[in-house]
Amino acid sequence: MIFPIFFTFVLLLSISDAAVQDFCVADYKAPEGPAGYSCKKAAKVTVDDFVFSGLGVAGNTTNIIKAAVTPAFAAQFPGVNGLGISLARLDLAPGGVIPFHTHPGASEVLIVTQGTIIAGFISSANTVYLKTLKTGDLMVFPQGLLHFQVNGGGTPAIAFPSFSSPSPGLQILDFALFKNDLPTSLVAMTTFLDVAQIKKLKGVLGGTN
Amino acid sequence: MIFPIFFTFVLLLSISDAAVQDFCVADYKAPEGPAGYSCKKAAKVTVDDFVFSGLGVAGNTTNIIKAAVTPAFAAQFPGVNGLGISLARLDLAPGGVIPFHTHPGASEVLIVTQGTIIAGFISSANTVYLKTLKTGDLMVFPQGLLHFQVNGGGTPAIAFPSFSSPSPGLQILDFALFKNDLPTSLVAMTTFLDVAQIKKLKGVLGGTN
Amino acid sequence: MIFPIFFTFVLLLSISDAAVQDFCVADYKAPEGPAGYSCKKAAKVTVDDFVFSGLGVAGNTTNIIKAAVTPAFAAQFPGVNGLGISLARLDLAPGGVIPFHTHPGASEVLIVTQGTIIAGFISSANTVYLKTLKTGDLMVFPQGLLHFQVNGGGTPAIAFPSFSSPSPGLQILDFALFKNDLPTSLVAMTTFLDVAQIKKLKGVLGGTN
Amino acid sequence: MIFPIFFTFVLLLSISDAAVQDFCVADYKAPEGPAGYSCKKAAKVTVDDFVFSGLGVAGNTTNIIKAAVTPAFAAQFPGVNGLGISLARLDLAPGGVIPFHTHPGASEVLIVTQGTIIAGFISSANTVYLKTLKTGDLMVFPQGLLHFQVNGGGTPAIAFPSFSSPSPGLQILDFALFKNDLPTSLVAMTTFLDVAQIKKLKGVLGGTN
Amino acid sequence: MIFPIFFTFVLLLSISDAAVQDFCVADYKAPEGPAGYSCKKAAKVTVDDFVFSGLGVAGNTTNIIKAAVTPAFAAQFPGVNGLGISLARLDLAPGGVIPFHTHPGASEVLIVTQGTIIAGFISSANTVYLKTLKTGDLMVFPQGLLHFQVNGGGTPAIAFPSFSSPSPGLQILDFALFKNDLPTSLVAMTTFLDVAQIKKLKGVLGGTN
Amino acid sequence: MIFPIFFTFVLLLSISDAAVQDFCVADYKAPEGPAGYSCKKAAKVTVDDFVFSGLGVAGNTTNIIKAAVTPAFAAQFPGVNGLGISLARLDLAPGGVIPFHTHPGASEVLIVTQGTIIAGFISSANTVYLKTLKTGDLMVFPQGLLHFQVNGGGTPAIAFPSFSSPSPGLQILDFALFKNDLPTSLVAMTTFLDVAQIKKLKGVLGGTN
Repeated sequence: MIFPIFFTFVLLLSISDAAVQDFCVADYKAPEGPAGYSCKKAAKVTVDDFVFSGLGVAGNTTNIIKAAVTPAFAAQFPGVNGLGISLARLDLAPGGVIPFHTHPGASEVLIVTQGTIIAGFISSANTVYLKTLKTGDLMVFPQGLLHFQVNGGGTPAIAFPSFSSPSPGLQILDFALFKNDLPTSLVAMTTFLDVAQIKKLKGVLGGTN
Repeated sequence: MIFPIFFTFVLLLSISDAAVQDFCVADYKAPEGPAGYSCKKAAKVTVDDFVFSGLGVAGNTTNIIKAAVTPAFAAQFPGVNGLGISLARLDLAPGGVIPFHTHPGASEVLIVTQGTIIAGFISSANTVYLKTLKTGDLMVFPQGLLHFQVNGGGTPAIAFPSFSSPSPGLQILDFALFKNDLPTSLVAMTTFLDVAQIKKLKGVLGGTN
Repeated sequence: MIFPIFFTFVLLLSISDAAVQDFCVADYKAPEGPAGYSCKKAAKVTVDDFVFSGLGVAGNTTNIIKAAVTPAFAAQFPGVNGLGISLARLDLAPGGVIPFHTHPGASEVLIVTQGTIIAGFISSANTVYLKTLKTGDLMVFPQGLLHFQVNGGGTPAIAFPSFSSPSPGLQILDFALFKNDLPTSLVAMTTFLDVAQIKKLKGVLGGTN
Repeated sequence: MIFPIFFTFVLLLSISDAAVQDFCVADYKAPEGPAGYSCKKAAKVTVDDFVFSGLGVAGNTTNIIKAAVTPAFAAQFPGVNGLGISLARLDLAPGGVIPFHTHPGASEVLIVTQGTIIAGFISSANTVYLKTLKTGDLMVFPQGLLHFQVNGGGTPAIAFPSFSSPSPGLQILDFALFKNDLPTSLVAMTTFLDVAQIKKLKGVLGGTN
Repeated sequence: MIFPIFFTFVLLLSISDAAVQDFCVADYKAPEGPAGYSCKKAAKVTVDDFVFSGLGVAGNTTNIIKAAVTPAFAAQFPGVNGLGISLARLDLAPGGVIPFHTHPGASEVLIVTQGTIIAGFISSANTVYLKTLKTGDLMVFPQGLLHFQVNGGGTPAIAFPSFSSPSPGLQILDFALFKNDLPTSLVAMTTFLDVAQIKKLKGVLGGTN
Repeated sequence: MIFPIFFTFVLLLSISDAAVQDFCVADYKAPEGPAGYSCKKAAKVTVDDFVFSGLGVAGNTTNIIKAAVTPAFAAQFPGVNGLGISLARLDLAPGGVIPFHTHPGASEVLIVTQGTIIAGFISSANTVYLKTLKTGDLMVFPQGLLHFQVNGGGTPAIAFPSFSSPSPGLQILDFALFKNDLPTSLVAMTTFLDVAQIKKLKGVLGGTN
């Protein structure tokens, strides 16, 4: 069978314009909408927009929580914009803790690739789902629910959380309560914590009022 | 337990860029897309973008339908942009009527907060769902179906419809049929209404042709 | 113009089966799926499935938080199943508080219909959006973010929150932390609260471990 | 390159269970949910579930509107269940009319394959979008908006509407207003039509009250 | 009943701004986002944005595949932008073939309007769904699965595929494998095709490496 | 501050029924719908439904492609049902290949956790996006596009692909073309491959006709 030259020409002519929207690589300089960043022009997209190299290196865990979260969300990884998925890296030194937090707009599946992690989430019905995860184990944290991860062993642990959104958000409970200008009296009234406890943690985290 | 200063620094550094997309407050001057308005830069967002004060005042019901609808949709209330929800206020003077209408892109739940309202909707299967609602009653009007509300008592009624979209649209049947330039002959042909009836209502509502 | 009898017959014959899925009233006895409850057979649906009368009565605020939340979610109000919207009623006696909580799967728009309410939410970027709402004011709480409501006056306040989901969920922070069997040591490690504080609140709320 | 027999075995073993959910062919006897019908077991699915032959034959236009709509929605065509698309056939004899109607849950694109059709829709802003379509022309009717089609020539016209939903619904305005038990007084109040006009059309279409 | 002039004024005043987002006609010069093109200002939208006339004419099938695909996707037909649907025209001369291809982001329903077409798709479970379609027959190709169409008779065939997306994409297998710079060695390794076969088809289609 | 016992009782009473739909753990014995499996009753859900341990062990790569894919999709991992995300494990021995394939209903982000992987995908516009990924690198493969992975070094490689769907599907090109009963003549006609080539691969993979 012989393909004359015009084969390529004719069919491509009619469909080439339709081939957009396979992806929408983030253009950080154009407007952002409810569905994500604007798309970079296809001609300017390269393979490097679809590749992210930041998760090969451990995050710095020399801090009070002995932990680090390194995101590869749409804000860092332009290729995932609009695609309903993103990743991050979690490093937990011995004694490391990712304190209670939520992802307001995404479910998470965590895979442990090194060490042991105690992880848990709480449902709306107030049930605790708690498990010690070994290397290779997965755990899913349904959208918007409070959850935490703690190093469960004496050695560094590494895990990779995946999210059902390119921009999952991250609300850390302690930061929300103690690391801003929300008045102590309102925190007390809406958490039932003692004022002294609130002032102590506001002091540590740099909250005011 | 003591939190050294660098705790805040290290963890925030790695996640700060990821914290976008909790919301997308409407920027009315930037392009609009299928999912809604572009987002205002986070630094320019204030609490007032999330608060709307227009529904505390009764709409003006000194008109022929003795009714008023005051919307708090994304076009008026920038904080709901992209969030899948909006509200409005409905005032019905005695004898007031919200004529047959649809919301092309949203379901509605109405709560009556004062007075009595007779409300109904018609399904595709042509069944009438009709009810007299008292203060405190809710009624749901599934997406896109024809429905109406009528003051069912001798005193002013107030209700607050919520919508499953920040921009639910509102198509009032009488306006669609009689308050534009759609030729009378086409209206007659596509509604089976008498020409005289059509001309009468076109006259009242300002329709032409 | 005269319509012969067979008009009705012919057209309806061809489209009657297609008229389903205007709505999907919850059948609580059939399986539930990720998109909601199974649908009641259309022939068994009545207008009362689309009407909910429970929000006309004040909730009982004779409790420690001097507040009550009465939901009209898909679990209580079968007509909203699958429609992307639901409502609730909020009663706040003087001094009443709805403590910090999230709705894991929904945004909320609150309308104050009586009294004054101080409401606030915290973003992922840790900014506080705080406002005193008067009767008629709306405030939107974007999906999954921590927020609270407090009676801001000396008289009872009433508000109606709408949600962008028929089953928005409700996770109350204090319940998640203190009213279950999550071990005190894990709460301490993942919240940085003092053990004594945790034990105190566990005692009050009935938590164990 | 030689493929040993075990190639097939090993790879298939690990992924076979994951291969579901390419499609969800409707099982009309199992429960229906907000997202559509339950799925037929894959082993019982045949190519005939994905093929529909009903649109090759003209609908019967020997009726008062001289028109017929033949649907291939999920209720008739099990293969489109859950896939976000469906089709129908429209036959318009000379003088034929599809009266004003909406599809509550879907946008429509119509292609004329024979004859001439005058089609129009009305927007929420009350603008008329009206066009005479020739064979081969397409017109899109955005979700939930009132629209109609009229044979624009002296010969039979055929068109195929596609819908952005497997169960688009179909609400015919005249049926909603005049072909059920909605009281004449309520129709008058909510449409501003004269009572005589309403009674006349109720008589023709079989409506009561 | 008499309608005073101010009826129109008062009601429209309060709802006019809310009437946007019935549609989002593509503005090809503004940014594109994950949900589609930006919207043209409503004042500039005309009925011609909702009408597309390109499918009335046969595509040029004087080519090696004796076939042509003419799209009416969002890139060609601005009115379907954001509406979840689009159409195309398929011409197959005798012996014509649309080779194996996928639509990465859409399901397809094809209607045959002239001639006979042999069509098939393959599921993830590797089952072949193959059928000879006659004029008037429909076939659905679920999202993302490999499928093809072949003229099954001695006369030209015409079909109109509808898609569940305004920008369905189109990936032709032969183009992906043989009509770009993907190295022959990688094609061989990832398809198990012989190098000679790959080089032959790269030669015909203009691929390199 | 003292919490009387009735606090717990009153507030919980009103909201307990609303707390469902945080998640929808798959009940494999109940019907499946377009949105996924039916939900297990909350009372029967345990933490083990949210944990999956199968990815800690290498898949068996003693096969012709020297590779293994181990899925943790909704069919294997009930906790991800309805949550828009899932994971898998990919093992590539030296020389290992995951041949060209697509996921019809999901985008994929792959993280390499050991070794080196050459990965690529082809867009609808026929551009090749090809990259050698080192340990810690991510690559995103947009929904429905053809892609492959090849071990790029002399040592075993491991990677974990995440998907934007709990049931992403998996269509392997060679299986679709050569490992079923699709007639050789149709494969030839729709791929332009030589008949001898097709018969050779059908022989190896067990295809017929």
